Amino acid sequence: MGIIGFVSAVSPAERIRFILGEEDDGPPPPQLFTELDELLSVDGQELEWKETSRWIKFEEKVEKGGERWSKPHVATLSLHSLMELKAFIEKGTVKLDMEGTTLPQVVETIIDSQVESGQLKASLKEKVMYTLLRKHRHQTKKSNFRSLADIGKSVSSASRLFSSQENGSPTPSHRNLTSNSLSDFSDKPEKDQLKNKFMKKLPRDAEASNVLVGEVDFLEAPFVAFVRLQQAVMFGALTEVPVPTRFLFILLGPKGKAKSYREVGRAIATLMSDEVFHDIAYKAKDRQDLLAGIDEFLDEVIVLPPGEWDPDIRIEPPKSLPSSDKRKNMYAGLDAPQMNGDTPHDTGNGGGGGGGGHEVGEELQWTKKFCGGLVLDVKRKLPFFASDFVDALHIQSLSAILFIYLGTVTNAITFGGLLGDATENMQGVLESFLGTALAGAVFCLLAGQPLTILSSTGPVLVFERLLFTFSRDNDFDYLEFRLWIGLWSGIFCLVLVATDASFLVQYFTRFTEEGFSALISFIFIYDAFKKMIKLAHHNPINANFNSDLVTQYDCRCIPGTNAFSRLPQPVNITWASLTKHECEKFGGQLVGEVCDFVPDITLMSFILFFGTYTCSMGLKTFKTSRFFPTTVRKLISDFAIILTILLFCVVDALVGVNTPKLIVPSEFKPTSPHRGWFIAPFGGNPWWVYLAAALPALLVTILIFMDQQITAVIINRKEHKLKKGAGYHLDLFWVAILMIVCSFMGLPWYVAATVISIAHIDSLRMETQTSAPGEQPKFLGVREQRVTGICVFLLTGLSVFMAPILKFIPMPVLYGVFLYMGVASLKGVQFMDRLQLLLMPAKHQPDLIYLRHVPQRRIHLFTFIQALCLALLWILKSTVAAIVFPVMILALVAVRKAMDYVFSQHDLSYLDDVIPEKDKKKKEDEKKKKNKKKGSIDSEMEFSDYPYHDNIPTIKISMEMEQEPMLADKSVYSEYESGFVLLRVAGAWLPLVLWH
Amino acid sequence: MGIIGFVSAVSPAERIRFILGEEDDGPPPPQLFTELDELLSVDGQELEWKETSRWIKFEEKVEKGGERWSKPHVATLSLHSLMELKAFIEKGTVKLDMEGTTLPQVVETIIDSQVESGQLKASLKEKVMYTLLRKHRHQTKKSNFRSLADIGKSVSSASRLFSSQENGSPTPSHRNLTSNSLSDFSDKPEKDQLKNKFMKKLPRDAEASNVLVGEVDFLEAPFVAFVRLQQAVMFGALTEVPVPTRFLFILLGPKGKAKSYREVGRAIATLMSDEVFHDIAYKAKDRQDLLAGIDEFLDEVIVLPPGEWDPDIRIEPPKSLPSSDKRKNMYAGLDAPQMNGDTPHDTGNGGGGGGGGHEVGEELQWTKKFCGGLVLDVKRKLPFFASDFVDALHIQSLSAILFIYLGTVTNAITFGGLLGDATENMQGVLESFLGTALAGAVFCLLAGQPLTILSSTGPVLVFERLLFTFSRDNDFDYLEFRLWIGLWSGIFCLVLVATDASFLVQYFTRFTEEGFSALISFIFIYDAFKKMIKLAHHNPINANFNSDLVTQYDCRCIPGTNAFSRLPQPVNITWASLTKHECEKFGGQLVGEVCDFVPDITLMSFILFFGTYTCSMGLKTFKTSRFFPTTVRKLISDFAIILTILLFCVVDALVGVNTPKLIVPSEFKPTSPHRGWFIAPFGGNPWWVYLAAALPALLVTILIFMDQQITAVIINRKEHKLKKGAGYHLDLFWVAILMIVCSFMGLPWYVAATVISIAHIDSLRMETQTSAPGEQPKFLGVREQRVTGICVFLLTGLSVFMAPILKFIPMPVLYGVFLYMGVASLKGVQFMDRLQLLLMPAKHQPDLIYLRHVPQRRIHLFTFIQALCLALLWILKSTVAAIVFPVMILALVAVRKAMDYVFSQHDLSYLDDVIPEKDKKKKEDEKKKKNKKKGSIDSEMEFSDYPYHDNIPTIKISMEMEQEPMLADKSVYSEYESGFVLLRVAGAWLPLVLWH
Repeated sequence: MGIIGFVSAVSPAERIRFILGEEDDGPPPPQLFTELDELLSVDGQELEWKETSRWIKFEEKVEKGGERWSKPHVATLSLHSLMELKAFIEKGTVKLDMEGTTLPQVVETIIDSQVESGQLKASLKEKVMYTLLRKHRHQTKKSNFRSLADIGKSVSSASRLFSSQENGSPTPSHRNLTSNSLSDFSDKPEKDQLKNKFMKKLPRDAEASNVLVGEVDFLEAPFVAFVRLQQAVMFGALTEVPVPTRFLFILLGPKGKAKSYREVGRAIATLMSDEVFHDIAYKAKDRQDLLAGIDEFLDEVIVLPPGEWDPDIRIEPPKSLPSSDKRKNMYAGLDAPQMNGDTPHDTGNGGGGGGGGHEVGEELQWTKKFCGGLVLDVKRKLPFFASDFVDALHIQSLSAILFIYLGTVTNAITFGGLLGDATENMQGVLESFLGTALAGAVFCLLAGQPLTILSSTGPVLVFERLLFTFSRDNDFDYLEFRLWIGLWSGIFCLVLVATDASFLVQYFTRFTEEGFSALISFIFIYDAFKKMIKLAHHNPINANFNSDLVTQYDCRCIPGTNAFSRLPQPVNITWASLTKHECEKFGGQLVGEVCDFVPDITLMSFILFFGTYTCSMGLKTFKTSRFFPTTVRKLISDFAIILTILLFCVVDALVGVNTPKLIVPSEFKPTSPHRGWFIAPFGGNPWWVYLAAALPALLVTILIFMDQQITAVIINRKEHKLKKGAGYHLDLFWVAILMIVCSFMGLPWYVAATVISIAHIDSLRMETQTSAPGEQPKFLGVREQRVTGICVFLLTGLSVFMAPILKFIPMPVLYGVFLYMGVASLKGVQFMDRLQLLLMPAKHQPDLIYLRHVPQRRIHLFTFIQALCLALLWILKSTVAAIVFPVMILALVAVRKAMDYVFSQHDLSYLDDVIPEKDKKKKEDEKKKKNKKKGSIDSEMEFSDYPYHDNIPTIKISMEMEQEPMLADKSVYSEYESGFVLLRVAGAWLPLVLWH
Repeated sequence: MGIIGFVSAVSPAERIRFILGEEDDGPPPPQLFTELDELLSVDGQELEWKETSRWIKFEEKVEKGGERWSKPHVATLSLHSLMELKAFIEKGTVKLDMEGTTLPQVVETIIDSQVESGQLKASLKEKVMYTLLRKHRHQTKKSNFRSLADIGKSVSSASRLFSSQENGSPTPSHRNLTSNSLSDFSDKPEKDQLKNKFMKKLPRDAEASNVLVGEVDFLEAPFVAFVRLQQAVMFGALTEVPVPTRFLFILLGPKGKAKSYREVGRAIATLMSDEVFHDIAYKAKDRQDLLAGIDEFLDEVIVLPPGEWDPDIRIEPPKSLPSSDKRKNMYAGLDAPQMNGDTPHDTGNGGGGGGGGHEVGEELQWTKKFCGGLVLDVKRKLPFFASDFVDALHIQSLSAILFIYLGTVTNAITFGGLLGDATENMQGVLESFLGTALAGAVFCLLAGQPLTILSSTGPVLVFERLLFTFSRDNDFDYLEFRLWIGLWSGIFCLVLVATDASFLVQYFTRFTEEGFSALISFIFIYDAFKKMIKLAHHNPINANFNSDLVTQYDCRCIPGTNAFSRLPQPVNITWASLTKHECEKFGGQLVGEVCDFVPDITLMSFILFFGTYTCSMGLKTFKTSRFFPTTVRKLISDFAIILTILLFCVVDALVGVNTPKLIVPSEFKPTSPHRGWFIAPFGGNPWWVYLAAALPALLVTILIFMDQQITAVIINRKEHKLKKGAGYHLDLFWVAILMIVCSFMGLPWYVAATVISIAHIDSLRMETQTSAPGEQPKFLGVREQRVTGICVFLLTGLSVFMAPILKFIPMPVLYGVFLYMGVASLKGVQFMDRLQLLLMPAKHQPDLIYLRHVPQRRIHLFTFIQALCLALLWILKSTVAAIVFPVMILALVAVRKAMDYVFSQHDLSYLDDVIPEKDKKKKEDEKKKKNKKKGSIDSEMEFSDYPYHDNIPTIKISMEMEQEPMLADKSVYSEYESGFVLLRVAGAWLPLVLWH
């Protein structure tokens, strides 16, 4: 008897290799639903088979008193029960491919076989038969005792029941057993069975394996049988769900060891839910094959020392599991080590977080031909154009439209409001709506990647502000100057398209992008507070106000002594009747204690500001709370910003204080009366300005190119499993064209907005419908189509008529949203995590992957350099040099390149991405070679750091979170989740604050 | 060869019983520090023994790149490595009680023995010797590669190093090995060793076990040795810490299986850290004993199925562990089952949370003699009186004094402020300070349980308010009436003392107490908002204010037309110059738009109110954040309220708005000028009032008795491990006396305050100083003494001179603190948890113990009844019947009693406590009997629900949290932690709001 593979003379490995290595002449074995039924006396009267646990992948157990299913958990077994199971399989009846259509028939065959072999006395046949055919009670069925009515009825019987129930060991009373030989077993599927919602968790072709264990008083030796049926058969109400039974494990034993039997039952059920043993069970030819399967299982089990773990703790299913392919393939004779590097990371990963890096595909290769990339893009995307509309036919598209529409509109509102403020209403809310709708719709209809959502972005807005100030100071015609810059930039971009320049995008790493996005976040936060302080200065609080002295306070307008009054003093005015504004206009003087003060507005503004921030933070994280069903929570979380804005508009209206509100025109016309819908290209500025505009246009081009392409790379990442290919050049082509159009119409410029685009992708994710309880659903891909995007922007266009409603939004609420956006978008940035590490004692630091592999002082040095760069950028931004802002971003790339000489590639590979693709390739090859060397199973445990290296997210923007495959901590996941959602909307806002 | 006990012919159990069952003729074996050193090449040059893991109880691993220790985690092993270890122990050299004083000597003996037995070629002796005596490198020592300086030096060597490092498999270069036979091994302890702070984690008598594994190229068969030394010997720098080595496990093998060797090393190290195997290793007589020990370990291991768990996940140490005593005693022949019910709950539990229930000891038994209990109390406590002062000599007392002082003072401030408000300053801040100091100091000096902290409590305050209103409405002399009520109550209490009535306290269950405390919390929250709304009404906001029209706004005083003016109109007044107050006084009329409005104050108040609430909430939870060392976090969390109050006083001062402030007298005299420090008992009221006072006194007595004794029971709980006994009767005696004294002096009445008393106990906890990393420190007991309490109250007394500072505290800040207190004290209440369950879908509900055992609809019914009771209490409280408030609490007891007929005892035992002690005893006996039946180990797994039943906290007040032994979830613990701390201070405040 070979207990553990390598100890015994004949390795089970060989046998398993033989079993699993066979040619497959059919579909893979179907998924199994395993149910453990125990023989218990219900109501202290009758013996029944009661379902106590079930498995698809993880164990779920019936809570004895709670009458509910436990959470799915990892089945902890004792080695003892596994060895016992092995002994039982060795000695008991094993029937593989038995024929049988009804349960009584199957049971009789088994019993007869045991009687034949002398394992069971013929006289006991009837009793065993009777016992095995007793009724099955499933958890779906409400237990009928303990209703309020029958409490008084039988206190004694109840207490007796409890004593046996509580004990956990069933002590069935057998009085009726022999006298009543009638079978309670029903052969038809019950209503409960068909109505069971659990069916949703199972694929259509699932089969059942039923494990029946129990103790009886008439047996002296255990009665054991393992049966595989030739064909899966529906055995009526045997199984909880109406699924045909393929496997049957029966263990009836003498009294006194019920718990031990249950453990054996759990062991076989756990084995049946193990992917490898499951295959073996389906393919086994004889008893020895099964035993070899158990040995293989034992070889692979993970052992926890008894002194370090309490077996009663239910272990939550881990977020990701090692693929069973490794185990299977090793036996199936495939090239196991090769699988090593790849498969483990596909499993249970799925989410938008991990994996990847710059998965630069063929779309970004340099064709070295004129317009080569553009032509390829069109060729690639054209065949999908029809399907881009057909594929949208799904209810999910509708919710995606609604969600992204809200994000886009919120964006357009706030962006427009602030842009108007920055350009003295040359561009305002209406322009913002119109431009978004026009640019977005055209892009989604014709671009290479229709999942991208266009929007104004931060850097571009910085530019707009600088441009306006510059034009005003130099007496240029702003809109005409801007038109020429737009024209030049558009042409530059088209040149970039024609020369396939997009391939350069690979050179931006996490370092660059995080530095950039952290800077924008800081500007968000800084600006929100700056705005509020400005507001407070405009509405000073009267700290000396004493309500008792209210009779002494006033503010009168008296004739001014000011010689430089702007208007000639009219003759017939009553000075006292003038308003403050009029008084100032006519050169009057305001006299009185309260003239300079504005009550309530500042304080109300701060209440709205902080209230909006806190409330949106709270609502966002509501998703991870336990209350309400997931969909409701998700809804609240997704609409957090809108809900918050609404709530605080109501609060503002209720208090009624005259806080500053968003300014929007009430008619459909340009916000400024000094402009039309078409900007004439000539006449406003001297001729040389048209040429000089090329210089700032160069800077704009850098910005547009960076913003657009980085987002495009993120959208087209491998982990999104896009099937219709990308179109970087085509995308940039349309951005350039739209830029020219917008410049002529005096509308804002638009590029791809990272985070709202990701939200778009996220709302179109397709996942496996059926997943075992406790298992993460698998990500299948994204619903790639053009319809959602087009609809979103058409709706946005129609929303220009919403303008009259928008004027009720107080500005402090919008500032509060900015604060929130700034803080929220910092959350996913690894740079911030590393900054926080500075304040944490080593032992309290989270178990981040780079902390395991890079010495802390190196991490701190890296963080310090990054912080220094940011500080320099900040200082530059605040000085005259602000106009060269885009070039500064390029400087970050240079700094990162220089860091190659300070940090080892090993450290950088954990903290940042190694840049050139060829270097990466080389590394990958090396890794593969190394993996090939590894052979034995045991050598793969614990110390194999590198396979996990693949898992480390290597780059990019805020929503990238550190993936921690080593941690089962729930908080990590929820943090990631919420971080992602927080940032999802943040992107919609990212552009809005940078105007100052 | 017996693989697993029950399969083999000779059970290892017998052998172990023999080993462990021996008479102990000495102290128990010392604790072991186990270190795993691997043979690795450092700097690609020399072979060295590098420490890669260590164990005390849990595994800590050197993070390869991170150059740090990992978090302690449960060592997950493969079954494979355990079997391999067993095979090695079977074949290798096993030397028990070897003599040896130096490592070379020991190593030589081992090698010679192997050469002798032919296992090792004599020619290899030198090489093995050389290898085993190589230098040991420990994690404390900074690795010398990868410093900034030597990066350029050797890129090639570095990359080579990385390729071997990253692989995880050491590929040492042996070029120098043979040529250099000089031993690098140092024999003296190194500085690093002595300075190592890790020593703190080890008890003084600890010994080391060193595990050395590695691969070498000159061996063809593994070289294995397990050595126990006769005497533990310091082997110089062999071990990380300067601890003498007792065990030595050596595994040198041929090349290519380094990972496998490491796993074997981890297996033996894990075994050595297992409590049972550790004992066996110390007592083993031969190889077979060790093998039996491994078999025993294998019998007990917990197995995780490979398909359901990723072995790379590091499992955090569980909060509580099953005691190893069960395993040991089973073999030692002791009565294992008897231990079953008790020991598992002592281990790792320790904390203030779990266990217990009403552990009513002999102190609460009914003596049936006059003053029997009181006499016994005095007799019990007198012998400890001297030690009550000596035991305080510890630095911990100082921090406890400071912490509790702050709680008490915060209490006194807010309580005093509000009491003054409620009684029109007949009792105010000064009375509160004085009374607290007097009553507290006397009580701590003379009472039975000096750990109790006296304070005013909620119900008493409700009473004071009602009393004052009643007195005013009926023209009674309030203070005199109150004196008589106090006198009567004092006398009633003394009667209760004389009759040992305290034993009745057992009849209050969690249901009653939670209902009561939830009600008080609701009143807190309700009152906080009510106060704020009242404040807003006093300071209306001018919603129509338009800063442009400021010139039109005024408020003038004109002569009134009111005939009923209070004062005769003076002749010579200029109406316009009068203040608002004067104007009203003289019957003038206020005319103008702004007369009725007070700007800024309301909004500022709301900012302070919500700011205080949010900030205190945030600071409280700061304790569970990762930032700063634990002590700093604890400090911030403990002083959260004070810090918040300070912060918002500063904010208030900076903004400068004239918010309402706390009123305190600036001199040491009664707050009200109409009273003195002594209240005359006669003269103020008619004679019959003195007798009639007995009636309200009865109600007060019920309140006092309940509040005092419930707190006393909580303080004296078994889980606090108090050694000096309780004194319920003596406590009540002093409360009665102090009540009489306070009545005469016109000071508030004081009883034990639950939560601040628990905070007192908590700050005096004694825990084991050394605990293994990952292990919870063990709770040893409380520093029982009288000094801390006395000092706290002396300091409080001195604080009356602080009054001038207190007047800067804005009232909205105090209201914010009330809101916080109300919300915080709801957090730990199980009733609230159950209310929340109503909003949670079943699958999102936390894994609470009662959810496992009680059907959800029963839980909801229970919650519903409790909510109904609260609603009724609330309605009653709001009506005329408010004065019978104390009696209503007794009604809760009746309701609870009635619920015995609706719910089964099984359900109630999980949701509430079963009341009478004798019933509990009976149940306990039953349980013991049942436990005796259980024998086999395997039968104790998973389903043994009842042992855990003991763990369920059965009653009491807010800080009781559900203990969840089945969950390893970290969040649960931190929630518990924070909940506890939140409530710790909450108790200090509980009384303060009930006045209205």
